[in-house]
Amino acid sequence: MSPTSETRARIVQAAADLFLTKGYVPTGLSEIARRADARPGSIYHFFSTKEELLAAVLERYKAMIGPELLDPVWDGVDDPIERVFALLNGYRQMLAMTEFAQGCPIGNLALEVCESHPNTRRLLQDNFDNWLRAVARCFEDANDRLPPDADPQRLAVFVLTTMEGAVMLARTYRDLRAYDAAIASLRDYVERLIRAETSWNVQDP
Amino acid sequence: MSPTSETRARIVQAAADLFLTKGYVPTGLSEIARRADARPGSIYHFFSTKEELLAAVLERYKAMIGPELLDPVWDGVDDPIERVFALLNGYRQMLAMTEFAQGCPIGNLALEVCESHPNTRRLLQDNFDNWLRAVARCFEDANDRLPPDADPQRLAVFVLTTMEGAVMLARTYRDLRAYDAAIASLRDYVERLIRAETSWNVQDP
Repeated sequence: MSPTSETRARIVQAAADLFLTKGYVPTGLSEIARRADARPGSIYHFFSTKEELLAAVLERYKAMIGPELLDPVWDGVDDPIERVFALLNGYRQMLAMTEFAQGCPIGNLALEVCESHPNTRRLLQDNFDNWLRAVARCFEDANDRLPPDADPQRLAVFVLTTMEGAVMLARTYRDLRAYDAAIASLRDYVERLIRAETSWNVQDP
Repeated sequence: MSPTSETRARIVQAAADLFLTKGYVPTGLSEIARRADARPGSIYHFFSTKEELLAAVLERYKAMIGPELLDPVWDGVDDPIERVFALLNGYRQMLAMTEFAQGCPIGNLALEVCESHPNTRRLLQDNFDNWLRAVARCFEDANDRLPPDADPQRLAVFVLTTMEGAVMLARTYRDLRAYDAAIASLRDYVERLIRAETSWNVQDP
């Protein structure tokens, strides 16, 4: 990496960290520069507006979903259904590790800026789309265990809404009870789908 | 109402509207005063800090959950399970009516301020608690149709996480597909619980 692109990467990383813990609107550019160990003016060298920097942060999350989110939680987990719950457990660990300061970076930004920054919405959608695609693939890989009318895409949406809502409650209550309750219900649902398919196969081999 | 408490009520309502559409941090006090048709200084007469005004907004939501949220959507709906889905349909209508500008006021504020305003957390929790209690009561009222191990409180948490996640996706995608998909999955889950209880009763009358 050239020194220039190293500085840019440090700025994007610092912005991502601050947007995640403080939010987008309350984070100042001078704070980002300080955290990135860069001159305040250098941010404008790379990004002409704060929203452009936000776009770079979201592009980075989009590019890094594999190495930074999925690969670590799926390491050693081969069963596709267990991969879904390993991913949910990853968010749980993040909440516990950061004492509820950090949940889902995309979900946070979605509610904060989707109304005021319409140009950013496409990138938020892209991030959700990638996540949904990865989780839908898990359900596709388990399709021999699920009823024929179980739609992998619909199930993936249900996993995402559960995770985002559960993260919101965990951060508000400052404990994991609601998070665990929501994931337990989701698991109960998935297990009922699997049992329905099994009993169907038994009746009609 | 005295003219003083009328002014206070107008300020709280104006703040609630602006926090809901723009968010808490980006909303300025002068903007609130303008919308409330009050002198900017009069806000400080009632609230010594912006966070105190936020607390008044959250107290108001807490007090008004019946008349402003539940009563309208439950009018004419007697079946307790259908009440759960009527409530979810209420959020759907709000999203559609406001072209996705307004979702759940509590959920929005929760992610925006739970980290930076710890004193406000208790009021966010109270609002979620009231909502959960109302929905748990629906499942308690339907307990003859649900399996004995179905926990009304846990089901209520699952309904809340689904709603909050589904509102987030609807607002990000600017359409109702993900919202409808999530609610359809939740309904499928509840119907499977009801069918499980029914077949149990048939086997063991």
